[in-house]
Amino acid sequence: MTSHIRPEIIAMAGYVPGEQPRAGEAVKLNTNENPYRASERVYAAIRQAAEVGLSRYPDPAATAVREAVAQKFQIDPDSVLCGNGSDDLLTILTRTFVGNGELLRLPYPTYILYRTLAEIQGAESETVQFRADWTLPDEFCADSITNKLRLVFLPNPNSPSGTTIPKRRILEIAEKLPCPLVVDEAYADFADEHCIDLVEQCEKLIVCRTMSKAYSLAGLRLGYLVAAPHLVGQMMKVKDSYNCDTLSIMAAAAAITDDDWQKENRRKITATKNRLTERMRCLGFDVPEPQGNFTWNTRKDMPVKPIYEFLKQNGFLVRYMDYPGWGDGLRISVGTDEQTEKCVDLISEFLQKHARES
Amino acid sequence: MTSHIRPEIIAMAGYVPGEQPRAGEAVKLNTNENPYRASERVYAAIRQAAEVGLSRYPDPAATAVREAVAQKFQIDPDSVLCGNGSDDLLTILTRTFVGNGELLRLPYPTYILYRTLAEIQGAESETVQFRADWTLPDEFCADSITNKLRLVFLPNPNSPSGTTIPKRRILEIAEKLPCPLVVDEAYADFADEHCIDLVEQCEKLIVCRTMSKAYSLAGLRLGYLVAAPHLVGQMMKVKDSYNCDTLSIMAAAAAITDDDWQKENRRKITATKNRLTERMRCLGFDVPEPQGNFTWNTRKDMPVKPIYEFLKQNGFLVRYMDYPGWGDGLRISVGTDEQTEKCVDLISEFLQKHARES
Repeated sequence: MTSHIRPEIIAMAGYVPGEQPRAGEAVKLNTNENPYRASERVYAAIRQAAEVGLSRYPDPAATAVREAVAQKFQIDPDSVLCGNGSDDLLTILTRTFVGNGELLRLPYPTYILYRTLAEIQGAESETVQFRADWTLPDEFCADSITNKLRLVFLPNPNSPSGTTIPKRRILEIAEKLPCPLVVDEAYADFADEHCIDLVEQCEKLIVCRTMSKAYSLAGLRLGYLVAAPHLVGQMMKVKDSYNCDTLSIMAAAAAITDDDWQKENRRKITATKNRLTERMRCLGFDVPEPQGNFTWNTRKDMPVKPIYEFLKQNGFLVRYMDYPGWGDGLRISVGTDEQTEKCVDLISEFLQKHARES
Repeated sequence: MTSHIRPEIIAMAGYVPGEQPRAGEAVKLNTNENPYRASERVYAAIRQAAEVGLSRYPDPAATAVREAVAQKFQIDPDSVLCGNGSDDLLTILTRTFVGNGELLRLPYPTYILYRTLAEIQGAESETVQFRADWTLPDEFCADSITNKLRLVFLPNPNSPSGTTIPKRRILEIAEKLPCPLVVDEAYADFADEHCIDLVEQCEKLIVCRTMSKAYSLAGLRLGYLVAAPHLVGQMMKVKDSYNCDTLSIMAAAAAITDDDWQKENRRKITATKNRLTERMRCLGFDVPEPQGNFTWNTRKDMPVKPIYEFLKQNGFLVRYMDYPGWGDGLRISVGTDEQTEKCVDLISEFLQKHARES
């Protein structure tokens, strides 16, 4: 029976998201969720939408969200496309631009879902390594030898590093590339700059956003992208007609308009992140300057997997990552002050024990 | 710039869903939504999930829904896959089984989204015509000459006809086919029989369901399919990790467990549907025995588009469909008693005026 399945699907391993234990079982600092409750405007919008009822299909264009995004960034609503989380948008982008046997490019190390998307599409993917200082070589902007390059993904801020490529360099990359550049700005709400205003200048630039991180709405599944309106028109044909549900549309529109909540959330996350970075550096970790809501922590003197395991035994989940040819590290999401302090205390305890034993 | 888009996407027209006017502007009998409010258990589950908060990612496996479905039909939870509406499931199925240049089959006339899914995938589609009595010829079970047939879609009850293929015939079709048969049971909750229990008998059979119709939850976006567990395992690799959101998962699980609500809703819809069918036949329409929550109304004596337009002018939206080589008709969703009676009254009024004028 398995023979009926496409061989590309059987061959692939599938993307494995971060562990999602049942609520309350662990302190989750492993999938870059926001530790704070979303704006109460969001929950009021959900209650109101539930009051009206859910028997009707949602607005296929998610107009309320497009208009809120257009208002926030002073752009054309027709340049906005909404998705069922930014995963849905990344899928739509791949299916719109990359055909069977064609090629997509991503940097390395980065979010490995991009590669999975190529596999499902029966397409190839190639990686261009970041330099040791997390900048990108010019190779990243070059055409492929095969002339089959159709789409390039660049998370900015990047995961796991938390670093950013400056805006002027992004524009340069987009202009040099022979195909569209998707800048995945999942973490840009925490960063110093973003590229949404560049889309009008450069048609090859597409920017993706999510409500999962900076709006505390990972459970809601809503993301949006900003692209030239004629590209949005083509992508509308590829998305499922009703890809965003009524509750998400109303909730996301409410969240986007609550600037005060977002400013205050960013202030808290940034303060905690700065303390986390400082303490981890004091404990001997290399931590590149973090522009998202997480830090990337590596060590030259020892593998960090035992630290991940020690934390897990003590009820703290962080993300352990090991990139062949690049080394391993711990990606730690910024939690509340208390969660974050306790996590670093445990790491400190582990290192002291380890020092005594060796 | 458009040259960066896959030629298959540029060439396709895109699926156009039924008109979705802003709330309150029209009586919507055009997209087979349920006119009644969902079970209050659904809204209680939404309030409770919102209380807990949405900052965490949802359960990637939608376990609560899988378990509710498994309980309802006495099947293995591992044979259930959840999707962001059954559209998402149809997309996942196509991407799992049908590669670039391969073939999918559908009957005709039917839900045209299946053809759109083939187009996006760079695949071919072929149709096999229903017989005039809405049964299927043996040609529907045959292999394709090219040997490229990979998936067959069969909505049962069918849209627009509202007719069903008997269960024993479905099993026969599945067993004869060289590839999996997807039975799209969007409307099966209103019908006399369904095929979920056949999946264990025949690995080539996959059954899709939606919460949009019989559970009054079109706005929520949740569907599920039942298939052999090893096929579900492969499809899990193709779906987006978090394709169902927290609110939908909790709400759908609550809806599925409320048998009393569903029985009462089915009773009301069936009673109204029977009156609608009877009155339309009295007005001279041909109406095949309806097994969904809608009727398919055709006439030999006149085109029906003017009736659709007259209804629209009077604030009633029904679905006008014209199938080349087959003729046109009105698909009318079952509304409340009041909506449905008023709709037929308007049709009667139109026909009287038309008779006087001609």
